[in-house]
Amino acid sequence: MGLANRNLITIDDLSNQEIGAVFTLANEMSDSMSEQLGVCRGKIMASLFFEPSTRTRLSFETAMLRLGGSIVSVTDAQLTSLAKGESITDMARVVGSYADIIVIRHPWEGAARVVADYAGVPVINAGDGGHEHPTQTLCDLYTLKREKQTISGLKIALWGDLKHGRTIHSLAYALARFGATILFHPGTGLEIPDYVISKLTTEYGGELEPAGTGRFLPLDAIYMTPDKPHQLAMIPEASLRVELKEGIDAVYVTRLQRERLSTTKESEPSSYPVVDKKLLKGKEFKKSLIMHPLPRFNELDHEIDADQRSMYFQQAAWGVPVRMALTALLLGAREIPLPAEADYTAPHRDYPTYQRDFGVRCLNPQCVSVQESEARYIKPGFKIVNYRPLTLRCIYCEHEIHPRFIASSEWHEGCIASKKYHRADSHWTRKIRPENLIIFNSSDDAEAHGFKPSYYATKHHPKGNKEEL
Amino acid sequence: MGLANRNLITIDDLSNQEIGAVFTLANEMSDSMSEQLGVCRGKIMASLFFEPSTRTRLSFETAMLRLGGSIVSVTDAQLTSLAKGESITDMARVVGSYADIIVIRHPWEGAARVVADYAGVPVINAGDGGHEHPTQTLCDLYTLKREKQTISGLKIALWGDLKHGRTIHSLAYALARFGATILFHPGTGLEIPDYVISKLTTEYGGELEPAGTGRFLPLDAIYMTPDKPHQLAMIPEASLRVELKEGIDAVYVTRLQRERLSTTKESEPSSYPVVDKKLLKGKEFKKSLIMHPLPRFNELDHEIDADQRSMYFQQAAWGVPVRMALTALLLGAREIPLPAEADYTAPHRDYPTYQRDFGVRCLNPQCVSVQESEARYIKPGFKIVNYRPLTLRCIYCEHEIHPRFIASSEWHEGCIASKKYHRADSHWTRKIRPENLIIFNSSDDAEAHGFKPSYYATKHHPKGNKEEL
Amino acid sequence: MGLANRNLITIDDLSNQEIGAVFTLANEMSDSMSEQLGVCRGKIMASLFFEPSTRTRLSFETAMLRLGGSIVSVTDAQLTSLAKGESITDMARVVGSYADIIVIRHPWEGAARVVADYAGVPVINAGDGGHEHPTQTLCDLYTLKREKQTISGLKIALWGDLKHGRTIHSLAYALARFGATILFHPGTGLEIPDYVISKLTTEYGGELEPAGTGRFLPLDAIYMTPDKPHQLAMIPEASLRVELKEGIDAVYVTRLQRERLSTTKESEPSSYPVVDKKLLKGKEFKKSLIMHPLPRFNELDHEIDADQRSMYFQQAAWGVPVRMALTALLLGAREIPLPAEADYTAPHRDYPTYQRDFGVRCLNPQCVSVQESEARYIKPGFKIVNYRPLTLRCIYCEHEIHPRFIASSEWHEGCIASKKYHRADSHWTRKIRPENLIIFNSSDDAEAHGFKPSYYATKHHPKGNKEEL
Repeated sequence: MGLANRNLITIDDLSNQEIGAVFTLANEMSDSMSEQLGVCRGKIMASLFFEPSTRTRLSFETAMLRLGGSIVSVTDAQLTSLAKGESITDMARVVGSYADIIVIRHPWEGAARVVADYAGVPVINAGDGGHEHPTQTLCDLYTLKREKQTISGLKIALWGDLKHGRTIHSLAYALARFGATILFHPGTGLEIPDYVISKLTTEYGGELEPAGTGRFLPLDAIYMTPDKPHQLAMIPEASLRVELKEGIDAVYVTRLQRERLSTTKESEPSSYPVVDKKLLKGKEFKKSLIMHPLPRFNELDHEIDADQRSMYFQQAAWGVPVRMALTALLLGAREIPLPAEADYTAPHRDYPTYQRDFGVRCLNPQCVSVQESEARYIKPGFKIVNYRPLTLRCIYCEHEIHPRFIASSEWHEGCIASKKYHRADSHWTRKIRPENLIIFNSSDDAEAHGFKPSYYATKHHPKGNKEEL
Repeated sequence: MGLANRNLITIDDLSNQEIGAVFTLANEMSDSMSEQLGVCRGKIMASLFFEPSTRTRLSFETAMLRLGGSIVSVTDAQLTSLAKGESITDMARVVGSYADIIVIRHPWEGAARVVADYAGVPVINAGDGGHEHPTQTLCDLYTLKREKQTISGLKIALWGDLKHGRTIHSLAYALARFGATILFHPGTGLEIPDYVISKLTTEYGGELEPAGTGRFLPLDAIYMTPDKPHQLAMIPEASLRVELKEGIDAVYVTRLQRERLSTTKESEPSSYPVVDKKLLKGKEFKKSLIMHPLPRFNELDHEIDADQRSMYFQQAAWGVPVRMALTALLLGAREIPLPAEADYTAPHRDYPTYQRDFGVRCLNPQCVSVQESEARYIKPGFKIVNYRPLTLRCIYCEHEIHPRFIASSEWHEGCIASKKYHRADSHWTRKIRPENLIIFNSSDDAEAHGFKPSYYATKHHPKGNKEEL
Repeated sequence: MGLANRNLITIDDLSNQEIGAVFTLANEMSDSMSEQLGVCRGKIMASLFFEPSTRTRLSFETAMLRLGGSIVSVTDAQLTSLAKGESITDMARVVGSYADIIVIRHPWEGAARVVADYAGVPVINAGDGGHEHPTQTLCDLYTLKREKQTISGLKIALWGDLKHGRTIHSLAYALARFGATILFHPGTGLEIPDYVISKLTTEYGGELEPAGTGRFLPLDAIYMTPDKPHQLAMIPEASLRVELKEGIDAVYVTRLQRERLSTTKESEPSSYPVVDKKLLKGKEFKKSLIMHPLPRFNELDHEIDADQRSMYFQQAAWGVPVRMALTALLLGAREIPLPAEADYTAPHRDYPTYQRDFGVRCLNPQCVSVQESEARYIKPGFKIVNYRPLTLRCIYCEHEIHPRFIASSEWHEGCIASKKYHRADSHWTRKIRPENLIIFNSSDDAEAHGFKPSYYATKHHPKGNKEEL
């Protein structure tokens, strides 16, 4: 399958080989930047930025212009019909009938997926709230690949705010897919969340090595077995200390997402790692690329800007050829032959899907599926990623929820004695055939649909009525 | 007269044949969209949107880019010199010296006319407050024409908020010009205003058939005699019921202009027609196109989106070839031969004009001619559309006023015994030669200019001093 | 030295001959506007407007499009990463890696200089706060040159608000460089500041002739000796009255910068000159071009718009070919041979530079060098333009300060008995070798760095502790 007419909503939409194809073309284009003006001549990119972003927007627009294409753009939510309460599905259809490709940034998580579902033209997610920003990840990987020739086997330290912002999480998943070893060095209280660790170890086959009392770092690491990410990685005998002694290939620094702290009323971290001249004198950083998605604040000292290990401005600059290559491929204006061999995209694509008009809904208030203007058009949907505990992953924003109650749609056919609902942690969850399963966020919700509690449903859960996140 | 260097401020600026020429070219262009890149190469469109509008703006910009032209744009009133109090006449002159064609949306009614008067390049009105939005009307007509081959003789139902927003009124006038029969189905309290009915019957030769007790519709209709719109239509023997039985060709739905309700402190309508699956099962809608200018809210159910009668997304998509054709024609980049035969544009183009430095001014507070920054440059002007009662139509915003007092500029030449002013409903109104007529909004205004009331001017109008709308 | 890869931050960045080259190319381009589409094909201009400006932005964008190039633009400070506190130096580096040329308007004075220092591509200042707007000056000069064939020897009256806004000051400097005589006619209390007069007489070799009791003008004049601006001009025997009798070549009117009045709490001027029909009847204005940078308000009556002396709309229109020529030259897309002879750019380029990490800082609160987000990256720097009194001119915003205290960095080497600081008006200021000079805004500042007052430092300055502007 080629890349023409495809979407890029999450980095997992591209297989490793497809990412390789984007990079091959990006190499070619960055080597002959001024010869690409005919590639997308006559094509129009709609650049829809419903949230501020100079860097990403200008990078995409530059990419399209360097390909000889044109731009129509929206840069302000206040000035659009959306502000009048229009659904983004309608917006997607209309803009999709004007433009040849859509680039969208939107504060709602999962918004880019919805736009892709309705637009009828390729859609690139340029950031949907805290969900994904896959072209940033592409640029990060491309920088590593260009400088180190490979990603497999690299040791990459992630530095700073590892808690907020899923772009750092996306990068971790992508690094895992390519078989890199990841070392975490968070600010105080900004550790990488458990669910990310869990996804890395269960879905990407990594293994966690908790921090020793390292020389200077409260460092955890995810070890990957290169080229066999599906299998459980064997824990290497080398300890973290050895890892450090051998040197770190790249330090990826992120800024403190201060705007998230205020939302969640978290306090400022008591310590936050800083990359500066002094740190770079350490032997373990001798060959480390210093990377940063920008904008930066104090975590990356300007004194090292001229250091040849500093890659952050180059990283931003490479955003243009990477986005040129991606745009040309999705538009079908260029093709790169892909190897015929079996491909690895992302694990567990075969999770069963759960989608019903009623019952459980996504509990993420930023999710596109729960917005008033969208709920009329968009049916909630989930991947069942685990049964014990029952874990649903929203197909839009990918937030996970743990619903507490379930029932069967077959009650009326006599298979079940009466219209009862059960606890999600009971044996019924697996016993009910997947196509008959009904899932509720709360017992109130179940009862509102006419179900009565089974004997065990509420007995041990006196507070079962309360909705639960 | 060709279309090159012309403006499109109201739909009446184009004759039926000229509209036909736009549609002919739009057909050609939509059939070979990718071959139009040379048509406007090197030409620049200034896209000036001083009010929010994603859809219309992107549609125009897409059209220009598909013609190979370029765009400079302004999308925010707050960010411009206009916010500093600059006159739009100066803005028009300057932008007209940069760009080859101007597309403007502006909150002041009549603003596009003023820009056209000063710019020196073709100007397209993309919406001037509540006044006109002629390219929307063009797209509506084009959709009908493409789907039904003709507009003449069609039966079109207008649905929803028929009171606010003159775009629906413009559509009604245009349908009348092409000889369609119009059926009105408003929400409660959102009936089509009397002055629109009056214009349809007096200027476009229609005839009103008030609603019977229809099966489901409180339906009025304007009957047109196809091809002879100047003549009074004969009332057809067929009743509305028959009309419905024969089927409606298109239902044109509009959203409730809620923002207008709050301005005028009107209450929410107690009922509002909704187009949904159930309605479309009715036999009379079997072949009805469902049209909507978007954005929509609840009046148009998303369940019918996949119905082949639903034309609203297609209608938006056709905005691009229609605007391409229009732009190419106004720029003189393409020409379409027009028939030599006598043409029908709009009736009563020969109303006498009234324009003086003092005296009557437009009473519409949104009219461009009464804005502080413009009043220095723009002389108020009116068409005298009726003498009994004296009715002036503003040449900018087309609002009508009924001034109460008149005088003659010839008083000093002895033709009139003394410098007197008279009631507008007196015989003087027609007796004074048009070129000498002076018209005042109020007796205060007349007296401020040194006129004294004639015997009858105030006698029967004890409240004559009050200004009157 | 050609113009390729140069910046235009202040009008003094271009020599008279280079300005001549821009005008030569502008002439050529305005004569064959539609033939320039190949000149900058494939080139991208980043149009960064962090302050409102329709006219200037559209003029630059039009120019680039007419050259066949493309635009990426930012038109709103609120919507950018800058709003998050990012340094403009980082922004400059990133945008410089996308685009081929940058046009920037920014509220901070000196911002364009900083962007030029970091971008790595040519940068054009489109207005940096109250500092400079050199392309406006170019358009003004071009208008004069086209209409009068030469600037040397012209008599130009500057009219209106001569106090606020340095664009009028820049024009005055530029006129002086080309040898024009300048006559000042300010509104009440809006006289040209003393430091501008001082710069005109000291740096540009002009001579001030104070106003006589002119017929109608409270007029001062700067007389220049054409072609010998370096030398002190001889005061011409002709009085102002004679000057007027011989006629004024151009009247350059400016609007009252009302927004500055409110900032500084100045009151409205009691009188303000107005250019209208009546004034233009004066014999001395018979051949005067009427110029205005727009937007205008009441100072320029719309009644004279059709007068053939009115050049303001033509002046705006010529902004396009002038900016086309400038852009093509800075991009190296066109070259104009420059005469080999010695060139005159701006006088006193050889002022010694003072730049240290600590000590004196610019006291202009709008200066880019004192902004919180920039102070980390930008080292304050000054030209020492005078020693008695000690006068530093900021290399960014060009504001001048008069620091009160100095010291020597050689104190520790025994050259000075102890670590003392001195008054800036003492003999030490010239005695300390320039490379050792340390300058402080205040005695507090000096003492914070461990210096003690010399005997005379504070004795006669009991209030020496206070910071001083």
